[in-house]
Amino acid sequence: MIIVMGSDTTDAQLDVVVKKIEAAGLRANISRGIERIVVGAIGDERKLEAEMFTPLPGVESAMHIAKQYKIVSRESHKADTVIDIAGVPLGGKQIQIIAGPCSVETQEQMDLAAKFTHEAGCRLMRGGAFKPRTSPYAFQGHGVEGLDMFRKAAQKYKLPIVTELMDARQLDAFMEYDVDAIQIGTRNMQNFDLLKAVGKINKPIILKRGMSATISEWLMSAEYIAAGGNHNIIFCERGIRTFETAYRNVLDVTAIAVLKKETHLPVIVDPSHAGGKAWMVPALSQAAIAAGADGLLVEMHPSPCDAWCDADQALTPDELKKLMGTLGAIAGAIGRTL
Amino acid sequence: MIIVMGSDTTDAQLDVVVKKIEAAGLRANISRGIERIVVGAIGDERKLEAEMFTPLPGVESAMHIAKQYKIVSRESHKADTVIDIAGVPLGGKQIQIIAGPCSVETQEQMDLAAKFTHEAGCRLMRGGAFKPRTSPYAFQGHGVEGLDMFRKAAQKYKLPIVTELMDARQLDAFMEYDVDAIQIGTRNMQNFDLLKAVGKINKPIILKRGMSATISEWLMSAEYIAAGGNHNIIFCERGIRTFETAYRNVLDVTAIAVLKKETHLPVIVDPSHAGGKAWMVPALSQAAIAAGADGLLVEMHPSPCDAWCDADQALTPDELKKLMGTLGAIAGAIGRTL
Amino acid sequence: MIIVMGSDTTDAQLDVVVKKIEAAGLRANISRGIERIVVGAIGDERKLEAEMFTPLPGVESAMHIAKQYKIVSRESHKADTVIDIAGVPLGGKQIQIIAGPCSVETQEQMDLAAKFTHEAGCRLMRGGAFKPRTSPYAFQGHGVEGLDMFRKAAQKYKLPIVTELMDARQLDAFMEYDVDAIQIGTRNMQNFDLLKAVGKINKPIILKRGMSATISEWLMSAEYIAAGGNHNIIFCERGIRTFETAYRNVLDVTAIAVLKKETHLPVIVDPSHAGGKAWMVPALSQAAIAAGADGLLVEMHPSPCDAWCDADQALTPDELKKLMGTLGAIAGAIGRTL
Amino acid sequence: MIIVMGSDTTDAQLDVVVKKIEAAGLRANISRGIERIVVGAIGDERKLEAEMFTPLPGVESAMHIAKQYKIVSRESHKADTVIDIAGVPLGGKQIQIIAGPCSVETQEQMDLAAKFTHEAGCRLMRGGAFKPRTSPYAFQGHGVEGLDMFRKAAQKYKLPIVTELMDARQLDAFMEYDVDAIQIGTRNMQNFDLLKAVGKINKPIILKRGMSATISEWLMSAEYIAAGGNHNIIFCERGIRTFETAYRNVLDVTAIAVLKKETHLPVIVDPSHAGGKAWMVPALSQAAIAAGADGLLVEMHPSPCDAWCDADQALTPDELKKLMGTLGAIAGAIGRTL
Repeated sequence: MIIVMGSDTTDAQLDVVVKKIEAAGLRANISRGIERIVVGAIGDERKLEAEMFTPLPGVESAMHIAKQYKIVSRESHKADTVIDIAGVPLGGKQIQIIAGPCSVETQEQMDLAAKFTHEAGCRLMRGGAFKPRTSPYAFQGHGVEGLDMFRKAAQKYKLPIVTELMDARQLDAFMEYDVDAIQIGTRNMQNFDLLKAVGKINKPIILKRGMSATISEWLMSAEYIAAGGNHNIIFCERGIRTFETAYRNVLDVTAIAVLKKETHLPVIVDPSHAGGKAWMVPALSQAAIAAGADGLLVEMHPSPCDAWCDADQALTPDELKKLMGTLGAIAGAIGRTL
Repeated sequence: MIIVMGSDTTDAQLDVVVKKIEAAGLRANISRGIERIVVGAIGDERKLEAEMFTPLPGVESAMHIAKQYKIVSRESHKADTVIDIAGVPLGGKQIQIIAGPCSVETQEQMDLAAKFTHEAGCRLMRGGAFKPRTSPYAFQGHGVEGLDMFRKAAQKYKLPIVTELMDARQLDAFMEYDVDAIQIGTRNMQNFDLLKAVGKINKPIILKRGMSATISEWLMSAEYIAAGGNHNIIFCERGIRTFETAYRNVLDVTAIAVLKKETHLPVIVDPSHAGGKAWMVPALSQAAIAAGADGLLVEMHPSPCDAWCDADQALTPDELKKLMGTLGAIAGAIGRTL
Repeated sequence: MIIVMGSDTTDAQLDVVVKKIEAAGLRANISRGIERIVVGAIGDERKLEAEMFTPLPGVESAMHIAKQYKIVSRESHKADTVIDIAGVPLGGKQIQIIAGPCSVETQEQMDLAAKFTHEAGCRLMRGGAFKPRTSPYAFQGHGVEGLDMFRKAAQKYKLPIVTELMDARQLDAFMEYDVDAIQIGTRNMQNFDLLKAVGKINKPIILKRGMSATISEWLMSAEYIAAGGNHNIIFCERGIRTFETAYRNVLDVTAIAVLKKETHLPVIVDPSHAGGKAWMVPALSQAAIAAGADGLLVEMHPSPCDAWCDADQALTPDELKKLMGTLGAIAGAIGRTL
Repeated sequence: MIIVMGSDTTDAQLDVVVKKIEAAGLRANISRGIERIVVGAIGDERKLEAEMFTPLPGVESAMHIAKQYKIVSRESHKADTVIDIAGVPLGGKQIQIIAGPCSVETQEQMDLAAKFTHEAGCRLMRGGAFKPRTSPYAFQGHGVEGLDMFRKAAQKYKLPIVTELMDARQLDAFMEYDVDAIQIGTRNMQNFDLLKAVGKINKPIILKRGMSATISEWLMSAEYIAAGGNHNIIFCERGIRTFETAYRNVLDVTAIAVLKKETHLPVIVDPSHAGGKAWMVPALSQAAIAAGADGLLVEMHPSPCDAWCDADQALTPDELKKLMGTLGAIAGAIGRTL
């Protein structure tokens, strides 16, 4: 940690800072410049917090220089981690496209969705049973019954299932239906009690980025899960909130490159929630794969116009099939497979 | 709801839209302009969602014209609602300053904090027992034990207590210690299961704004609580996330004026988390009260430099006392009391 | 234009609105709903502005339904426009990579840069003679002398030159050195007098997006140029400003897809200024081309570590050559050429 | 400047950094920690730029620790600067409200506006002759003719005039009409050639904040003016761009407190452009004054509904008079006068 102090700092003020560093078991290095004094705290700086120093007289600012995340960091684990989702590897050379509808509606809709997902060449299926909706008056999902329909439909094609968990009290049901990968939604990225709960189970967790979460906060949320013992974490970029109103979110492709550098864990992208419109999905999907994403979480509905939620962002089965073709070609261009 | 269609829309395409409106029990009004056709859906538009129309051929956009929130809206309830927090009224002519430390640390610290809160003339006390921290390795709060220390300290001065609930599973403990007002933190503003849980109890809820939540989303989150039966909701603006890095958040004073117009419920401000620095708190507090806020949630610590969290944003007891004087004068300038 | 009024609007209030619409030569269509009255203004709505209505009693909101840009819109011109930059076509099937250093430093540096640009297979060259710098104490560019060095270096390889214009008073010098494509920088996207000035000349204009400009404002700035008579406009996405601090800007790939839909003009991307770090440039370049960009504006320096500005974002000549290989493969995957 | 390097940095890599520091005339202090090596550059760090180091092998990051602005900084000039606008002091104990219409429309409108400005007790008048408009098809202002009308109207009440300069080529006309304070608009905050131009004249400059400019960039833009010799600079906060769509901009009151700490120059606020609606202006004005602003730039029109631009944000003469009363009371509450 570096603590910057004004040039008119008194020796007594400097001493308070040094004592506080030493009390935490670190050593202080003092560097006197012309306009500022810089105090470096040498040792395990995770024992310090900037706010331990910033209120002290003479201190202008304090900042960590090492990363605050550890288990999830690339520094702690150089090689890419490949996560096994019920037999399907995510994070290796092969790219995975997880397709399916926004929400579980009927058994028939799910049966068709599973069939089309399989036929398009996708090896994993998505679908929402518990739905986070902005309005309390909107359809909130079928809940446990939805998990049942989803499992039945996916089983026929041996597709592992991915679905969102919104509250720790639903975790038992998720274990009972043996959900293959559990998604934590954007609104719960910093629901720390929920993160602690999924940190104690042994299932892959897809952690979506909060709608205005920094990369650093996102990594720290993953660290919550990892600190509990569950290291099977997949990051999912889904667009961030900005000033732009022409589309729902801005897909942040830079995040893909930065995460691949900062963490050994896989990174996927949700192009459907990012743009919010089906016609944007191909361009965003192509950009994501070209930028280095390990997979996609993409919405496809047997009949988008009749979808019960987010109807305007689902691809048709034919559009998905066509997209898979282009993505395969792009994967080849960058030395990967689909 | 208004549905905008292109001028080259076919009659068949128009017909699909009209049928969908009628199927939901509303009536369609068609207005043909030079460049666009506008279809108005007449009736209870809460039965419609924009995405029911936007994927249809010919449709360019669809938008609600009425507000989606109902119980919390000023339209449904013209007069200001005054909420009773264990005998202290919030939302009327009298402004309430809720003061206290960021987190409950020790019984002694809480006893002192209660004393200083009372002496400064504040009638409500805050303090955190369950703490949402970005890092899993940071102090997470004393939990239930913290509630106990808080209640004991506040009792001596008959100060009602305000504290944050992070997970529905802790609600029983909150009821046991009879917490007087329950705070929902910024990271949980759209934790819908938690909102539903506090919608079923009979305690005032302080709903903080998500760090990048729109006013409309915030009102909808309040509507979740209200729809469950609990109408005792207080909005708390705490700064929003922007591009600016010179301070933690940008306190959004415009939100105060807009909320007072859109809802009948009280609006308070947290100047401590907004700026993130104690020296900014007086200016932000004064701005908030001058803009029409009904109260403040402000951090004060008996000894800020020794605080276990957010040390750099707590006022000293003396600073709080001085601030109360200025706020009283500003309250008088706008026809209110402190 | 649609004007939304409250359900308790009086006939007299409604009449004021209708009269104002008719006074501008349009016709009013009134649709009475349960909670709102919607007035549609039928005719050329560019004659109206929302603010003509929003201050009137009873009016809640007013909004245009047609686009405000005309010449640059896809509606006015269905086919893609291909712009000729001194013989090099931009906007067609062939993708163009414009490479070169951030700023013109010395004749030797420019000679080398031109050689490497040519050898990498790029057909256009970039370089800054007038530099917009945040600090008045930083290197401001060589000015006219820089144009001279640039032209000399590029001539040897017959590379058309692209450089930034910061002030209308420099336009004569730009014409004298026959700059092949003039760049308007992000800080000048809404420098309307400058836009008017380049609207009167007959040179391709590369219009960079303001750092927090909406797509709509960007299109309107292009309309300023087009309204002056110059239709040779190229949009350049260069990253937008957000809350994220891990990288300089967020490259907005969604903007590419949206612009290709809204306008017939070419769209290119500047991956160097977006990320701000050379190591991010390949991933961002690949994403941009995969998303449908017609070209890139990319920084390459013969010796990045010695660059006088933005040293950390320039590719080496070898990195550029390697990137060109990958981009060629991606172009092929989406049916284009490099 | 501090340069952070990885713990596996080689001696040769470290040496390159040290040499580069020494070549610029500074001295290096090396502090070896467990996870990082920190190199401090001791001396005048304005001679260094972060990007001189960040591309070097082993370097993770580099940052200035001293402020980059000098003349405008509070460090260089402790006392508040009071600026004289044709006899009216701005920046002292007395608060100044600059009122008037968005744009100069007719001589009659300006005569009335001047009368009402004077009657409300304001000592300075605003009005736009050159108007920055998003659309090229919107009213662009009367130009020089507008300056003439404005000067005539203001003269009768001896009101100094404040108006916006959009292009350096108009500066002669501004000097001819002896404009008392020149405003640089939000879109031109980083139009560096324009800043240089007004740096050479001897008139007070009101520098509006760019719509997404950081405090630091804003101070650097002022430094451009100051570096040219003109130190009569007034900062004007006018709301920043965020994700919120319920109002045009978010008035950033925190910026007031931070600027008062960072610079000795006066800070005023434009509540009209911030909110974009007249009904928000009183709350925002009150907040600005309570937070410590030295004045306001507020829109008042003799007949708002007939205004040619921004009609929905102008106060009526009566509303202005009433607001002046409240502001006077708030000024008193914080020890100032109006």
